Amino acid sequence: MRYYILVYDVNEKRVVKVHRLLRRYLQWRQRSVFEGYLADEELGELLRRLDSIIDESEDSVVFYSLPSDKVVHSFHIGAPPDRFENVL
Amino acid sequence: MRYYILVYDVNEKRVVKVHRLLRRYLQWRQRSVFEGYLADEELGELLRRLDSIIDESEDSVVFYSLPSDKVVHSFHIGAPPDRFENVL
Repeated sequence: MRYYILVYDVNEKRVVKVHRLLRRYLQWRQRSVFEGYLADEELGELLRRLDSIIDESEDSVVFYSLPSDKVVHSFHIGAPPDRFENVL
Repeated sequence: MRYYILVYDVNEKRVVKVHRLLRRYLQWRQRSVFEGYLADEELGELLRRLDSIIDESEDSVVFYSLPSDKVVHSFHIGAPPDRFENVL
């Protein structure tokens, strides 16, 4: 079990599908950013499902893997990120 | 000195200015993602400059602060992120 920060950059055509998939595994943080704990099996499953949605030549998803959420401190400036949640 | 992962979500009108500012402080990783070490003074300076560019009601910048880059492991799926670099 590790804590993940995930940032995706995918074509508009696939954003809704990717966003909905990610919401089943992680917490949404900002327009293209999700966070949360994943067990290894969950990570494997998520990677397989993402692979089946994204276009490898065009879309990119970066995973940051941390031992726990205790090692990271996050803050934001500007608009509160959560107001995007109703966009999708 | 801490290691930062920064993800921005700003209006198209301001993306170039934000991207160029961030490139002076951090390494670009993916379309809206930068990483790197910042001393407290640099962070303060960067926050002031970002504040002067972004529209607080519309743009959002999330900072993840880590004790070092040794605690985070990152990987990506899909297209290599760096091919966006020539976009700006």
